[in-house]
Amino acid sequence: MKKMAIIGCGLIGQGWAAVFARAGFDVALYDKSAKVMDCVLHSMETRICDLLEFELITQPEATRMLERIKIARTLEEAVDGAVYIQENGPEDAVIKKEITTLLDAISEKNVPICSSTSGISASRYCEEIKGRYRCLVVHPINPPHLIPAVEIVPSPWTSKDIVSKVNDIMLECRRETILLNEEIDGFVVNRLQGALLEEAFKLVGSGIVSAADLDKAICDGLGLRWSFMGPMQTIHLNAPGGIAQYVERYGDMYRNFDIGHYQNVNWASIVQEKLKDDFEKTIPIANVAEAQANRDRKLMALLRHKKQVRL
Amino acid sequence: MKKMAIIGCGLIGQGWAAVFARAGFDVALYDKSAKVMDCVLHSMETRICDLLEFELITQPEATRMLERIKIARTLEEAVDGAVYIQENGPEDAVIKKEITTLLDAISEKNVPICSSTSGISASRYCEEIKGRYRCLVVHPINPPHLIPAVEIVPSPWTSKDIVSKVNDIMLECRRETILLNEEIDGFVVNRLQGALLEEAFKLVGSGIVSAADLDKAICDGLGLRWSFMGPMQTIHLNAPGGIAQYVERYGDMYRNFDIGHYQNVNWASIVQEKLKDDFEKTIPIANVAEAQANRDRKLMALLRHKKQVRL
Repeated sequence: MKKMAIIGCGLIGQGWAAVFARAGFDVALYDKSAKVMDCVLHSMETRICDLLEFELITQPEATRMLERIKIARTLEEAVDGAVYIQENGPEDAVIKKEITTLLDAISEKNVPICSSTSGISASRYCEEIKGRYRCLVVHPINPPHLIPAVEIVPSPWTSKDIVSKVNDIMLECRRETILLNEEIDGFVVNRLQGALLEEAFKLVGSGIVSAADLDKAICDGLGLRWSFMGPMQTIHLNAPGGIAQYVERYGDMYRNFDIGHYQNVNWASIVQEKLKDDFEKTIPIANVAEAQANRDRKLMALLRHKKQVRL
Repeated sequence: MKKMAIIGCGLIGQGWAAVFARAGFDVALYDKSAKVMDCVLHSMETRICDLLEFELITQPEATRMLERIKIARTLEEAVDGAVYIQENGPEDAVIKKEITTLLDAISEKNVPICSSTSGISASRYCEEIKGRYRCLVVHPINPPHLIPAVEIVPSPWTSKDIVSKVNDIMLECRRETILLNEEIDGFVVNRLQGALLEEAFKLVGSGIVSAADLDKAICDGLGLRWSFMGPMQTIHLNAPGGIAQYVERYGDMYRNFDIGHYQNVNWASIVQEKLKDDFEKTIPIANVAEAQANRDRKLMALLRHKKQVRL
């Protein structure tokens, strides 16, 4: 069975271990802290029991997952024979450089060395590393074993083969991959969160709305749809003529809100040049009404779910 | 039984009718289009059957809801004896002014005249109306009978009594009310959506990510939490010391993304001045770890739900 190395076994490392073991990989856990290593297997058991309790895995799967996860006593032992390395160290470019240099020296060629960092692009620590062609960011959202989205962010030197290999492994692990074509601070997930938070702080800070009421705008409003449909598909379904018509109808309204640097972002031309054809393929205009009805059925199912579990 | 008047019976008006009838109110439906009026009762039946199918209401409730909803032949008949008026006309300030002036003339004093508009603040059409003290925006999210959040946006002339009365009625209708202390274009919901979309268009437009991958960042990422927890509470739980510590740790990171007008929004001082005390009351720092565990249980329940209904 193929083996995955997890370097750094805090909450993120443990989440990855559950993801990999569930997909059938052997998992080697290493953390330089003896204290962390002492409790990591017990923590993994708790995590796996939780998944079992919520019927996300079966009892035989839980048993097999635990069998696959093993402690490595040294960094060398962890990466020995591994086909993939996931590093979950501190958020510090100097430390990332140190540990990645070491991992590059002791692991086999062509094995991807991936970092869970949410803030540090790989180019900030891997430029001078010999094996920089196999260094990149693979950023999960906390907790990694519960949130399927994963951002894959290659550095300028990461080879296409490595990116493609990492993407395949993530798909095998049933992750939903977000592939970035180039590095950008905050990647996609935290930039979207940051844009929303910026406006949220502005509205709360100016006294227009309370934080509690603002939260309702998402968790009792926009967030319901967004739990099963992204923001782009959402607006594609919010006009009978799809996303191009939505932007035609509402683009000026949004522009008048004066949020952010509107002068640089022309929604309409982006739709024409980059989005219209793709959306015409995934949900043709002729099917928008049917997709809306389907969205409403999903909303009703979600409301029933929230009612049942008192979310 | 108290009666609610619905003026304009497209999708939004029909959604409101379901909300009001479900809460036990009599509902009078009026639309100046004979074509709309011809099919509105049939449409309401379909909507109510959907709610029944998804167990959001019981069969006796469905029957009573249908009994409560009645056609009015004239505007006068619709508002006669009504305790609340919800107008769902076209998005045009001139038309809003016309219809609201008329509603003000023919309805009883102190009855709130509420508009479903998503883009036109009440001050843009009600300033010269005699009963402007009872005019305001009550903005639902489409579809109104499935999304609980409702924005209440008073004009500068709306009386506090009217705002309070509307708030009470909305709570009686099991709506989650977002009360704005003053008018702002786009209110809260669409400003938050606009901020996120602006960044989304920027990322897709610059070729960093595809629209399909960006959508995953929400529907397989941030949107999962946001379906039961707002963005402010989310960050309160993303640092062991709560929201103040979160902003201390990550505020600079977000600032470096250069999204929007950062120079005007100081997250840290907003937290200190407006948020810290409230959050200390709702989720004290000592309870953050427990609230995180509870969030993860809700996430697992949501994942199980998505798996079961193939969302």
